[in-house]
Amino acid sequence: MLPYLIAPSILSADFARLGSEVESVLAAGADVVHFDVMDNHYVPNLTIGPMVCKALRNYGITAPIDVHLMVEPVDSLVPQFAEAGASIITFHPEASRHIDRTLQLIKSHGCQAGVVLNPATPLSYLDYVLEKLDVILLMSVNPGFGGQKFIPATLDKLAQVRKIIDASGLPIRLEVDGGVTADNIGEIAAAGADMFVAGSAIFNSDDYQQTINSMRQTLAAVHGK
Amino acid sequence: MLPYLIAPSILSADFARLGSEVESVLAAGADVVHFDVMDNHYVPNLTIGPMVCKALRNYGITAPIDVHLMVEPVDSLVPQFAEAGASIITFHPEASRHIDRTLQLIKSHGCQAGVVLNPATPLSYLDYVLEKLDVILLMSVNPGFGGQKFIPATLDKLAQVRKIIDASGLPIRLEVDGGVTADNIGEIAAAGADMFVAGSAIFNSDDYQQTINSMRQTLAAVHGK
Amino acid sequence: MLPYLIAPSILSADFARLGSEVESVLAAGADVVHFDVMDNHYVPNLTIGPMVCKALRNYGITAPIDVHLMVEPVDSLVPQFAEAGASIITFHPEASRHIDRTLQLIKSHGCQAGVVLNPATPLSYLDYVLEKLDVILLMSVNPGFGGQKFIPATLDKLAQVRKIIDASGLPIRLEVDGGVTADNIGEIAAAGADMFVAGSAIFNSDDYQQTINSMRQTLAAVHGK
Amino acid sequence: MLPYLIAPSILSADFARLGSEVESVLAAGADVVHFDVMDNHYVPNLTIGPMVCKALRNYGITAPIDVHLMVEPVDSLVPQFAEAGASIITFHPEASRHIDRTLQLIKSHGCQAGVVLNPATPLSYLDYVLEKLDVILLMSVNPGFGGQKFIPATLDKLAQVRKIIDASGLPIRLEVDGGVTADNIGEIAAAGADMFVAGSAIFNSDDYQQTINSMRQTLAAVHGK
Amino acid sequence: MLPYLIAPSILSADFARLGSEVESVLAAGADVVHFDVMDNHYVPNLTIGPMVCKALRNYGITAPIDVHLMVEPVDSLVPQFAEAGASIITFHPEASRHIDRTLQLIKSHGCQAGVVLNPATPLSYLDYVLEKLDVILLMSVNPGFGGQKFIPATLDKLAQVRKIIDASGLPIRLEVDGGVTADNIGEIAAAGADMFVAGSAIFNSDDYQQTINSMRQTLAAVHGK
Amino acid sequence: MLPYLIAPSILSADFARLGSEVESVLAAGADVVHFDVMDNHYVPNLTIGPMVCKALRNYGITAPIDVHLMVEPVDSLVPQFAEAGASIITFHPEASRHIDRTLQLIKSHGCQAGVVLNPATPLSYLDYVLEKLDVILLMSVNPGFGGQKFIPATLDKLAQVRKIIDASGLPIRLEVDGGVTADNIGEIAAAGADMFVAGSAIFNSDDYQQTINSMRQTLAAVHGK
Repeated sequence: MLPYLIAPSILSADFARLGSEVESVLAAGADVVHFDVMDNHYVPNLTIGPMVCKALRNYGITAPIDVHLMVEPVDSLVPQFAEAGASIITFHPEASRHIDRTLQLIKSHGCQAGVVLNPATPLSYLDYVLEKLDVILLMSVNPGFGGQKFIPATLDKLAQVRKIIDASGLPIRLEVDGGVTADNIGEIAAAGADMFVAGSAIFNSDDYQQTINSMRQTLAAVHGK
Repeated sequence: MLPYLIAPSILSADFARLGSEVESVLAAGADVVHFDVMDNHYVPNLTIGPMVCKALRNYGITAPIDVHLMVEPVDSLVPQFAEAGASIITFHPEASRHIDRTLQLIKSHGCQAGVVLNPATPLSYLDYVLEKLDVILLMSVNPGFGGQKFIPATLDKLAQVRKIIDASGLPIRLEVDGGVTADNIGEIAAAGADMFVAGSAIFNSDDYQQTINSMRQTLAAVHGK
Repeated sequence: MLPYLIAPSILSADFARLGSEVESVLAAGADVVHFDVMDNHYVPNLTIGPMVCKALRNYGITAPIDVHLMVEPVDSLVPQFAEAGASIITFHPEASRHIDRTLQLIKSHGCQAGVVLNPATPLSYLDYVLEKLDVILLMSVNPGFGGQKFIPATLDKLAQVRKIIDASGLPIRLEVDGGVTADNIGEIAAAGADMFVAGSAIFNSDDYQQTINSMRQTLAAVHGK
Repeated sequence: MLPYLIAPSILSADFARLGSEVESVLAAGADVVHFDVMDNHYVPNLTIGPMVCKALRNYGITAPIDVHLMVEPVDSLVPQFAEAGASIITFHPEASRHIDRTLQLIKSHGCQAGVVLNPATPLSYLDYVLEKLDVILLMSVNPGFGGQKFIPATLDKLAQVRKIIDASGLPIRLEVDGGVTADNIGEIAAAGADMFVAGSAIFNSDDYQQTINSMRQTLAAVHGK
Repeated sequence: MLPYLIAPSILSADFARLGSEVESVLAAGADVVHFDVMDNHYVPNLTIGPMVCKALRNYGITAPIDVHLMVEPVDSLVPQFAEAGASIITFHPEASRHIDRTLQLIKSHGCQAGVVLNPATPLSYLDYVLEKLDVILLMSVNPGFGGQKFIPATLDKLAQVRKIIDASGLPIRLEVDGGVTADNIGEIAAAGADMFVAGSAIFNSDDYQQTINSMRQTLAAVHGK
Repeated sequence: MLPYLIAPSILSADFARLGSEVESVLAAGADVVHFDVMDNHYVPNLTIGPMVCKALRNYGITAPIDVHLMVEPVDSLVPQFAEAGASIITFHPEASRHIDRTLQLIKSHGCQAGVVLNPATPLSYLDYVLEKLDVILLMSVNPGFGGQKFIPATLDKLAQVRKIIDASGLPIRLEVDGGVTADNIGEIAAAGADMFVAGSAIFNSDDYQQTINSMRQTLAAVHGK
């Protein structure tokens, strides 16, 4: 089992002060910056692109940046984000006609690669790509739509993917995104996730450090099981 | 003739400190915030969306925000940007099937409306929309591609549009975007523009105020002619 | 000048009794059945297709059916509507990559052919197709959106197209669609239109015949000028 | 097992007299109105949209209306059909990028929701949506193409889906559409279907009631097994 | 087990002398002409279309021509290639909304039909089409991108598909395409393939006959096992 | 006036012997190889791509190759054709969102650049690009559809473009494509064209040299006027 990682989603940060927001949340104990890219085509929203990623690197952020591409098509943005400082690039397999190729493209640019499965997406997409994956990201809400709660059926799906990863013997991260809070992070970890995207749960809290500490304590208890 | 407006493009600002960047450039004398939205479909780049606009309003920016939509399709983003605090929304007519409708949609949300003409786009797109326009924006470079210089043929096109506006008797702004600097702003104004987007010329200068002052002095001299 | 034609749009008819609705409106004096086809792509609405046209022919309707295609792409529906009994087929030139070809296709299937210009569409689309046109349809509202009023600028545009048609010496119909009522049909005819689509003005009236008669009287007065 | 439902497809009805056609077939014993929506994009045909559905409700039809969306994209039509009186809305999962979201959208508008599987579509699409489904519709012909016969391999597929539904313990309808007749409805029911779309078999028969009765008798015999 | 077939891909032939190139490679012992069609949409490349296929038939080529459609959409090209002399037509199921229909269309034009699975495509696409397949083609590189090597994981996938075919009892070809050489053809055959596309391995060799003979000898040894 | 150029379209050549076909037609007096690229999206046909162009260069063809892109989108194929040996690249402005940019792209790769106007396309597309054009190609049939005759209205359009070119003082070629034969080449030249694409008129003739000579004699007579 890989160590747990907490990845605040900057979608919930203050975009007018993004550098200091990210700096603060990392100082408060976050491990990874989760960077949500929407293009108003794959999802009905448009967020932020490579220039904003680059600005974070120029600001001095050295933590891993985990770029989640909610875009279609995928390939043209991969080199742009790699050049802008992305550490991990994940994409939705339905949005690429050549999934194996997109994974190779990401890796050829020196980034870690992953696929993201929507709540209804079957696991058969994983059948022939496991060896090229650094990350599997399960969506626990529908990406691109606001105000949603964690979909409970994700817990079973996490458990199924955990089994697949463990059976493969490969060091693949199992990330989860959508409605993760200090309250449910324990059962999500127990189901098999080891990387946790949290947006409003962290950035809307009064004290980032206290929230992240609380999450870590809950996660430590899962370890204890 | 309307008073000249200087509209720094935040594409050249530091996205890690966007609030203070915009605050600084306004304090230095800029009139309007030019907000460049690219969706990786109408142009081969993805920049920033409504959330970033909203963050500027929440930061306390009260100057007009001039949202330039380099996106296709257009209509779904109009209400999102209006709600996020846009003052002006412009779009490329080739990217909308129902141009008159898009103009009505922008106005029905309380924003000023305009069309943007690419360097090669003919003026016939203006024939039946003048009465619904608050702004005509002429691109003096190709939008979405980096490192371009002001296309000289824009000067003649500006003069032609200036005649059309004056003949109409309507209070339509004539904006220009692409490669505008303190060196060429004079001849651009002389050709008929009254609103000037400048990105790197301002944000990459050592002293925003000095640069904007220099632009204003040149513009004042045009007035003097 | 061709004789005036009144073309009720069946969009405002009762779709549960379409045969008798159309029969009634023809009996009340209408000349042509205007058939609005929307595909939820060119416009944000989906209405009726070839089967419904065919059903009207099978019901015994022998009046001309004027099929207005608000669809994109266009060509695949042309043979289907010709086979279903269309008399006239019009389309939006922005929705076809090969406008001359689409006109030829319509004519090769034995139908009359026309182009439809949206409120903001320039007249340059007519420059090289006049000789293949039986109809020019000017939209006086934006197609596919509900509850709109006649756009007054259409009157000038009608006058301009009337001049083009008269100068050509060709027997081209000048049709208008959108917000036409018994109240404004006079000035619309005076501006140059000779074929009038009216939907709710006819089908929502208490007495189809009285409404159509009222329109005819107004039109006769225009003749008198 | 839920009671059997017979759902005549109005594609085979007379569109010039749709209200009375639907009234007749319901009076003859049909349970549900099957409403086939094609947009000339997901399938190469265009049929009928929300206005026609609304007209049936205004005509006085109170039976459930089962709207089968053969359209892409899906989401924009959902609120329109809900407002027009749809009881059930089903869609093809390949036509939606966010299947779980589309299901939630349908339900949030007060309709029952279902997915439709084409003849070649694998069952893996069902893996993570069962709990949100009211209906699974298996196509036994390819949608949107005329003159096809029931694909025999559908029987095995029905049996597999029946097992999945029964194992779930959920009250999900198993609907079948394409080439269903009084002759094969027995074996189709025996394979596991409990809701039967029939178009020409009913509307092209001389006596709707006799045909539906004949189907019911065959179905009763299946019950008897 | 069907006899082994060697299918040189004409993508590696000299397009300035295509007739004689194909004649030579057939004289050298090749069984089938593999014809790669790319449309710059499904893959980022554009190669050759129906006219080139027709020219080979007019030149006197009578061997089977195996047309691999790397295009989207698929259906419009099927009749064109059938008319141009194709013997087999295969397509990618992700590129067709109606896979069963496309298979029927190919067969209705008198050609053999098959599906092509990309390296990452799951086998679930085969679940409900086996009975309509003459060929299953597994890609061992990503189609449309140059300079790739045989992906080793294809061997396991071949073995899995071999089991599916054998279990079905159907005479379905198992074809493989991408990075096949005289060096690896043995293990590929051992994994279950019985039809081998080879491009540069044959056309870039000094002596087509010697290369094909070498492949056949290796294949014979597999038989011997 | 530039000297007349005859440009046989290789669409009518024998694709099984393309090198020798092109060699023969050049030996017979042709000036330029016209290379028709169709992608089955901008036009309903798929022809030949960069590899075939490259093969002609490798075969030893040194004459200019005039690549006519009937594709959408355009930009991705430009560098591929430049690398494959194209001398001139023309495209349809409706198929590019950024026409000025596409022209710059072609020139930055060392090729001459041009736009192609369909029969119905208005001349307003030329208003702001003349200075970047080496060629204007007028289609005298609809591209991508077989068996068409020269559209007579092209003569007037040629005359109009000739005036525009002459007024500009720029050395822009005026090319014409579609239904050009030895019989009508005279009046086409008289209307203002100076570059003539001919397909079947040359390649289907018994003697390429005699046909080309005949065209040249007619053209010389035009000069004589």
